Amino acid sequence: MINPVTDEFIGQRNQRHEADLRSDYNALGEKLARDGIDIEALTRKAQEFRIAVPSWGVGTGGTRFARFPGLAEPRHIFDKLDDCAVINRLCRVTDEVSPHFPWDVVDDMSEVREHAAAHGLSFASVNSNTFQDRDGQSASFKFGSLSHTDKSARDIAVDHNIKCIEWGQQLGSRVLTVWVGDGSNLPGQQHFTRALERYLGSMREIYAALPDDWRVFIEHKMFEPAFYSTVIQDWGTNVLCALELGDKAYSLVDLGHHAPNVNIEMIVARLIQFGKLAGFHFNDSKYGDDDLDSGSLHPYQQFLIFNELVDAEHRDAYKVRPDYMLDQSHNVTDPIESLVTSAVAVQRSYLQALLVDRGALEGYQENNDALMASETLKRAFNTDVTPIQKAARLNSGGAIDPIECYRAAGYREALATERPAVKGGGSGIV
Amino acid sequence: MINPVTDEFIGQRNQRHEADLRSDYNALGEKLARDGIDIEALTRKAQEFRIAVPSWGVGTGGTRFARFPGLAEPRHIFDKLDDCAVINRLCRVTDEVSPHFPWDVVDDMSEVREHAAAHGLSFASVNSNTFQDRDGQSASFKFGSLSHTDKSARDIAVDHNIKCIEWGQQLGSRVLTVWVGDGSNLPGQQHFTRALERYLGSMREIYAALPDDWRVFIEHKMFEPAFYSTVIQDWGTNVLCALELGDKAYSLVDLGHHAPNVNIEMIVARLIQFGKLAGFHFNDSKYGDDDLDSGSLHPYQQFLIFNELVDAEHRDAYKVRPDYMLDQSHNVTDPIESLVTSAVAVQRSYLQALLVDRGALEGYQENNDALMASETLKRAFNTDVTPIQKAARLNSGGAIDPIECYRAAGYREALATERPAVKGGGSGIV
Amino acid sequence: MINPVTDEFIGQRNQRHEADLRSDYNALGEKLARDGIDIEALTRKAQEFRIAVPSWGVGTGGTRFARFPGLAEPRHIFDKLDDCAVINRLCRVTDEVSPHFPWDVVDDMSEVREHAAAHGLSFASVNSNTFQDRDGQSASFKFGSLSHTDKSARDIAVDHNIKCIEWGQQLGSRVLTVWVGDGSNLPGQQHFTRALERYLGSMREIYAALPDDWRVFIEHKMFEPAFYSTVIQDWGTNVLCALELGDKAYSLVDLGHHAPNVNIEMIVARLIQFGKLAGFHFNDSKYGDDDLDSGSLHPYQQFLIFNELVDAEHRDAYKVRPDYMLDQSHNVTDPIESLVTSAVAVQRSYLQALLVDRGALEGYQENNDALMASETLKRAFNTDVTPIQKAARLNSGGAIDPIECYRAAGYREALATERPAVKGGGSGIV
Amino acid sequence: MINPVTDEFIGQRNQRHEADLRSDYNALGEKLARDGIDIEALTRKAQEFRIAVPSWGVGTGGTRFARFPGLAEPRHIFDKLDDCAVINRLCRVTDEVSPHFPWDVVDDMSEVREHAAAHGLSFASVNSNTFQDRDGQSASFKFGSLSHTDKSARDIAVDHNIKCIEWGQQLGSRVLTVWVGDGSNLPGQQHFTRALERYLGSMREIYAALPDDWRVFIEHKMFEPAFYSTVIQDWGTNVLCALELGDKAYSLVDLGHHAPNVNIEMIVARLIQFGKLAGFHFNDSKYGDDDLDSGSLHPYQQFLIFNELVDAEHRDAYKVRPDYMLDQSHNVTDPIESLVTSAVAVQRSYLQALLVDRGALEGYQENNDALMASETLKRAFNTDVTPIQKAARLNSGGAIDPIECYRAAGYREALATERPAVKGGGSGIV
Repeated sequence: MINPVTDEFIGQRNQRHEADLRSDYNALGEKLARDGIDIEALTRKAQEFRIAVPSWGVGTGGTRFARFPGLAEPRHIFDKLDDCAVINRLCRVTDEVSPHFPWDVVDDMSEVREHAAAHGLSFASVNSNTFQDRDGQSASFKFGSLSHTDKSARDIAVDHNIKCIEWGQQLGSRVLTVWVGDGSNLPGQQHFTRALERYLGSMREIYAALPDDWRVFIEHKMFEPAFYSTVIQDWGTNVLCALELGDKAYSLVDLGHHAPNVNIEMIVARLIQFGKLAGFHFNDSKYGDDDLDSGSLHPYQQFLIFNELVDAEHRDAYKVRPDYMLDQSHNVTDPIESLVTSAVAVQRSYLQALLVDRGALEGYQENNDALMASETLKRAFNTDVTPIQKAARLNSGGAIDPIECYRAAGYREALATERPAVKGGGSGIV
Repeated sequence: MINPVTDEFIGQRNQRHEADLRSDYNALGEKLARDGIDIEALTRKAQEFRIAVPSWGVGTGGTRFARFPGLAEPRHIFDKLDDCAVINRLCRVTDEVSPHFPWDVVDDMSEVREHAAAHGLSFASVNSNTFQDRDGQSASFKFGSLSHTDKSARDIAVDHNIKCIEWGQQLGSRVLTVWVGDGSNLPGQQHFTRALERYLGSMREIYAALPDDWRVFIEHKMFEPAFYSTVIQDWGTNVLCALELGDKAYSLVDLGHHAPNVNIEMIVARLIQFGKLAGFHFNDSKYGDDDLDSGSLHPYQQFLIFNELVDAEHRDAYKVRPDYMLDQSHNVTDPIESLVTSAVAVQRSYLQALLVDRGALEGYQENNDALMASETLKRAFNTDVTPIQKAARLNSGGAIDPIECYRAAGYREALATERPAVKGGGSGIV
Repeated sequence: MINPVTDEFIGQRNQRHEADLRSDYNALGEKLARDGIDIEALTRKAQEFRIAVPSWGVGTGGTRFARFPGLAEPRHIFDKLDDCAVINRLCRVTDEVSPHFPWDVVDDMSEVREHAAAHGLSFASVNSNTFQDRDGQSASFKFGSLSHTDKSARDIAVDHNIKCIEWGQQLGSRVLTVWVGDGSNLPGQQHFTRALERYLGSMREIYAALPDDWRVFIEHKMFEPAFYSTVIQDWGTNVLCALELGDKAYSLVDLGHHAPNVNIEMIVARLIQFGKLAGFHFNDSKYGDDDLDSGSLHPYQQFLIFNELVDAEHRDAYKVRPDYMLDQSHNVTDPIESLVTSAVAVQRSYLQALLVDRGALEGYQENNDALMASETLKRAFNTDVTPIQKAARLNSGGAIDPIECYRAAGYREALATERPAVKGGGSGIV
Repeated sequence: MINPVTDEFIGQRNQRHEADLRSDYNALGEKLARDGIDIEALTRKAQEFRIAVPSWGVGTGGTRFARFPGLAEPRHIFDKLDDCAVINRLCRVTDEVSPHFPWDVVDDMSEVREHAAAHGLSFASVNSNTFQDRDGQSASFKFGSLSHTDKSARDIAVDHNIKCIEWGQQLGSRVLTVWVGDGSNLPGQQHFTRALERYLGSMREIYAALPDDWRVFIEHKMFEPAFYSTVIQDWGTNVLCALELGDKAYSLVDLGHHAPNVNIEMIVARLIQFGKLAGFHFNDSKYGDDDLDSGSLHPYQQFLIFNELVDAEHRDAYKVRPDYMLDQSHNVTDPIESLVTSAVAVQRSYLQALLVDRGALEGYQENNDALMASETLKRAFNTDVTPIQKAARLNSGGAIDPIECYRAAGYREALATERPAVKGGGSGIV
């Protein structure tokens, strides 16, 4: 494969934007300096920021109704890593990939690791899959996996998770993320308590298989694929399970997995307070687990979450720093473009949260000056940190305008012959 | 195929239950008589009640995550009709089938009509599908169908709908139901107004193609497969479009297509008041368009909807009586069992609504006696009309206990060799 | 005061209904006997059932917009107890009253206890109030109480709660229920973590003041009066605080205090599983904390909650049995009528849950027979247990038809001169 | 009264900020010029922008639980106008006040008009109140007003609205806004259809009384104060009523009056398309009708609404331009500060919407380039238009930093003796 998104190509495209960037950067630098903020320090923070991309995210997603494939879709983990490399080359904050098993399993996992390393990529948390059956599986996950009433189904699910750890070790990962689709569609179908006991029993087996330097992340979700009840339905059940399992167990927050109107930034604060925040699956949503591009609908909510995260750093409140990952379904966009844009959008929230005057905010909070506390946050949020983000990318070798650069390079078109069109007829697996 | 669910078999199973039924029926009859209600008249109403089943409902559904197939799934419209016939034979209120095109299209549609007729089945509204692409389709529906920016895609969608009318005519149907997945996933993607104008333009073409005795039903939906905006997003846009199109256009209510907390029975009342209620897609849901079995979660809401429907009959408020249909996704149950149970559950709501003392209720409403008005409804709802439903089935040749009868007959097992197992790997299309 | 709702009057009214009741009761008894269920045992269970009424519930409620007073509203705790006595005399399952302080405080609390005892009433959990300021209070609760940034406000709130325990001891109560309105209306106003730390600090002081045989119930609420964040916002934070505080701390569930679509019966199961279920504030709601009459909108949800409670009894899963209380705002009904009706509605859910065939249900759950599991619950729910409830009331000296009896007695009219009309201008305090 | 917020004082405070503003303004001007945008033209647009404030908004709000009064609260319409004048003097975009009757009625309404005029204020739409009873009112609104079952209550409500028009004429207003709290708390309490027929009957009488140059705005609301159903429950019923009444009737959008997750910007587009958008009650909310400060929680949603409004201007799609008003409840902030901040926040959304490259956006929409369409909106939203807003205020005589200026002036403190403390005990009326 000939990848047209080369460092050289990026450098050429950047030249068109550098003068304008310089001008905007200087103006912002002056303005921030008046508040005692060093733009260079911020730019370094922007360069140090990291967020993982999911291997499955580079494929076109779908719904239960249909999947409309895109051009030159990746066929396997090697193609996916090629796409992830392009993403990182453009934005320079996504040098970790989160694999999904068994989708990303190959005979010799060292080939995967080497392919990634050749791209400058390494591996974030590994994700198990017990929401689908494999061909010839001796017991189905139709009615559950880790919480199934049938011990043999649970065993298959436990074994798969333990294998995921092994594959993860071969890739250099140190975290297992466990999301199960277990639940029920009708009242009475499942005994809530027994189901959770079985889940915990299975998780204890998996937990016991964790290497010393590994952790396990539990992911809760309100609904889908189960539509009446879900075994790990909310952060409450999640954190109680994490407490039950032990110090290596943490609670993961996916922004789309909550009830309507829920204050997610508050859940983040609570998980930090109780020492159990694992990290995030970033995305945005309006209705359910819509898996839309991060920050595309509720950028202020994303900022408020980072306000908690930066505040926790500020207070030195972490036992372990949380992991950030994108988890989106790209049904109508080029996945590479969405992932680049989303990584930038999350980085933006982080930078804006860094701008919050924490001393002033604390004062307003102590004095119950609600209006000025709110204004302090809004002031940071309203600051257009785009020049910092562009400069950070430029400094790191990325593209000042990554989408324009990517399109100019003609990546998809170059790959179209190599990666033949897939049929779309079916629904999307995301 | 040898169908073990014969009239004779049903009759044999019924014998076990007749004595108990007689006893319960008499006790209920006595009780109702005290309120001046004639149980025989109610039983006749129960026998006259009809609700259509969707041809796609007899297949096992799924989610974007997975589909776990069941035993002996129908392979084509003829198998589906066989299954629908079993449903009707058991409950005797579902002698209409609502087909979906192109899924149910065969070369000679008269064969379909004859196959149905042989089962005593006829056809309710026909459903078009412009949320999926067909192989070799010259313009994709990825970004819309009736509202697509590209005229050629709109034309394909319009043509398909007109063809649906023709297929429907061949089947003896007189209603076209139009649901489109058109919408957007990101702010800005779609110009709301232009999209609706295009939709209306397309619909005017379809409307113009309606035979004199046909009507068109517009179905709204809040979200999914589009996750930021949907062209016909709620009953407000629905009814405005129906008014715009003319007297043959009506607004269909699917119980799962509304925002959280919305008072659906009120929407039903409003559509009746403005002369635009088409009918229903019945199902139940807790979170989104969950498509669960009707009445399995919110039986009182279903009753309150029927309270509006019976009240409208009582006031002679209909221009045209609304059509009832089940529209569910059966992911964890045998679809035949779910459809039988759901038809019975909807019939139950209807009978309970018939029990409401409308004279008393009106008096309480006039006097703002909120408590007694509520109690009047609850009293009707609390009445166990099961004996009436069983007697109605018995009278009509159906099964007193349809699930028990169906299981005893061993229908699936008998078919298992004839209908080979399908692979589940993909996701469900519902 | 002359109370027309005497035992004698009730007895006279009952005579009109006894024959019909006998007939319905026998028919139901026969039917249940076929399933091996003893109606007499159920009737005893119905008689033993208890649910407390809140002292504030007998006043007419309101909203922030207005309060429209009713006839002969109670003026003080003695009037309230008179009203509560009428409620219990009619339905015979509400012999406990839950007082609210300082609203129900008088100089000599023994008079309150004696007044109650004369009515056959005793006291359930006592409720503190730190969501309103008292005249001359040295530090306001405008910006919080137990979690206030100002230690002096926290101290006032702590002291008040400790006084509540003392008042409660004088009344013979053994539970303190703590609900705080603390929270924020704007992002940034409150530091989530510090606020919860302060709350926990205050609660530890209150906890330390609990007598040996007392417990404290923590009540969570998603929003209102705070509209951006609430300190104890959900069951997750609630249970973590209860765990933090110790064995005397439990988590209370108010049905109206959750996010839209949340599966409340599952939360109940989780709290039982983790040994922290305190009990309930029963009411019903469609949108927010609407505080409508129990079972008036979602009777099946109420049944599903009792399904969990009866199942827990069945499994002997309780450390302590949960407390039941009504907590409603009666804006458009006579509060006495609403409380009687609601107590009966909750009792109904309990009886229906007792009818569930737990052996069969467990079998269906083990076999993942979702449909039959659901049908098993629906069958119990569909049973009209009204005759059992009427018989239980008759046996206990209550009214077969309590609303009719109450209205016939003319209680409000009899009191109208004694209790003068109050002005409604202001809003309701509920 | 001596108002310390004089033009002179504002001018002095501004001097401290002018140099910084100049620098930021120039930098932004340069940046915008690169995109072909003239910052001066934008600044003029910012100066021309107008949004009305509600007379009731300057009082401290509350909830059904409590109201905690602030310092120096206004006692009557003259005090309220004084406060509104301060708001406008600070931000210079709020020279219209929306009065509420009967709250703002005095014997001689010309005094009110003169008092306003002396402040440079005039009057926006007048608001009727039929959700509260007046002393000695012959029929109560407890069970409804314009839709009451009792004709005499309806007549009082109609008469009041007609009087509101007369009062409004005396103040120079030309719009009547009608919001009713009518609805029900229990199923069955109200006959949905008859209630709406009665409402329409009453509205026709009011409509008939409208002077030639007047319009009437209908406001819908999902719930509160009614908690099961509301007569004008959503935009669907609203627009159908507006169509029914005629060309002078329009549909008003309050951002807090919708179901969870509803796409409000789409409703705005639909109302524009069908020629019925009256205007807005701006506020923000997380859970229900929280009435929080505009843009404090969902600034992007507010921007998306203005994207529709600016697009409609761009397309020349208005019959009449919509009216903007703030409608908030200030429970924990100084109402003057919240209204200033909110007016600025809404103006901000307007300016950001003006920045959208409509030509580019239309191109992306035509090509279904969802990502770039979204990025086009985000780019406008991400632009920090604060310098334009500050410059606009400076140009118009307002304060560059209005909150700082207001606090420095010591307005509340200066008024504290003149306006004595009110008791807070009751709940808030908002």
